[in-house]
Amino acid sequence: MLVNETLEEYVKDVSSSKPAPGGGSVSALVASLGVALSSMVYNLTIGRKFYDEYDSDIKDEIESGLKICERLISELMPLVDEDKKAYEDVIKAIKMPKNTDEEKALRSQKLDEAYLKAINVPLKLARLLSEGFAPTLLIAQYGNPNAISDAAVGALLLFAGLQSAYINVKVNAKFLKDKSLADSAVEECESLIKRYEPVKDEILNTSIKNL
Amino acid sequence: MLVNETLEEYVKDVSSSKPAPGGGSVSALVASLGVALSSMVYNLTIGRKFYDEYDSDIKDEIESGLKICERLISELMPLVDEDKKAYEDVIKAIKMPKNTDEEKALRSQKLDEAYLKAINVPLKLARLLSEGFAPTLLIAQYGNPNAISDAAVGALLLFAGLQSAYINVKVNAKFLKDKSLADSAVEECESLIKRYEPVKDEILNTSIKNL
Repeated sequence: MLVNETLEEYVKDVSSSKPAPGGGSVSALVASLGVALSSMVYNLTIGRKFYDEYDSDIKDEIESGLKICERLISELMPLVDEDKKAYEDVIKAIKMPKNTDEEKALRSQKLDEAYLKAINVPLKLARLLSEGFAPTLLIAQYGNPNAISDAAVGALLLFAGLQSAYINVKVNAKFLKDKSLADSAVEECESLIKRYEPVKDEILNTSIKNL
Repeated sequence: MLVNETLEEYVKDVSSSKPAPGGGSVSALVASLGVALSSMVYNLTIGRKFYDEYDSDIKDEIESGLKICERLISELMPLVDEDKKAYEDVIKAIKMPKNTDEEKALRSQKLDEAYLKAINVPLKLARLLSEGFAPTLLIAQYGNPNAISDAAVGALLLFAGLQSAYINVKVNAKFLKDKSLADSAVEECESLIKRYEPVKDEILNTSIKNL
């Protein structure tokens, strides 16, 4: 599994002429790293002196923010492998025989199923990533000032991941037979980008003013 | 070494309450992944039928583009560990005794040396990353159309890495004694962002019109 490769092996794997792992798998890793940076700021905040002085409702919010990050990481990391698998299934379907009408129909059906899976991975990535902005903003506002730059980098990576997920949704959308499903996936990503770009900027502004 | 950790271990390490690896180390990995995606598109281009039909000067440009990417990856990956080491040296210097004037002077000197190293890692990252935009643009223009989305994701990661490097330069700049050096490092990053943002956009436009 890719998640068990070393950083060095994975980067080498990406750069090789194998078409997978590619942009989809890498985006899932970048997303995980973005949320992991937020988690780190949470972990450098909870239990510190300044944290103990917060009101209990802010403490509660912070504690559930960390839980959201932990859940997101556990849901994002598997996508590093799932995207590769989805891509391989597309290739498998493309290589199916198409000599008879029956073979053609079966190939076409398998190919459509494979593209559906291939669009669903980056779509899931975009949705999960979107959930990462609120906890990152919260910890940029209330977190350990010594680690605030890590929340800013986290926000940059969440947004780059979201833009990358959009590109991967778009590249698979044109192959889907169900055009309304393809359009709605592309539109959903566009609206997530529009919605979370200002949150990313707010996180950056909050952090940078404290740098 | 961090580059020998698995993806899973590294993400866990980032998310933990250890302050390093943090945003600096992660940015170096993201930068490496961005260039690795460009490399992949080069490797899916060179030797293909459509490639053989290019003029020899375009082929030469493409071949040297791949070499630039390979060199960049080999220079970027070590920064994943160097950033952590630089951060640990800052912590070591902070913990030095400061009871006598002599101790204070030595601590102050070591701390300044450590912050200088800590600003130099993301500054080097920003410079190396900047070299990645031209080869990514080239391969977005001439590369395998089936992998063009990977060049787009590569460009997004290069730019997110550059913005992250800027944040890490800025956060260390305020601790440097040599203010003119600190200012010039921040300004250099700002000017690299200004210079390469339009190149990133050009890569995205070139790729997206072919999606």
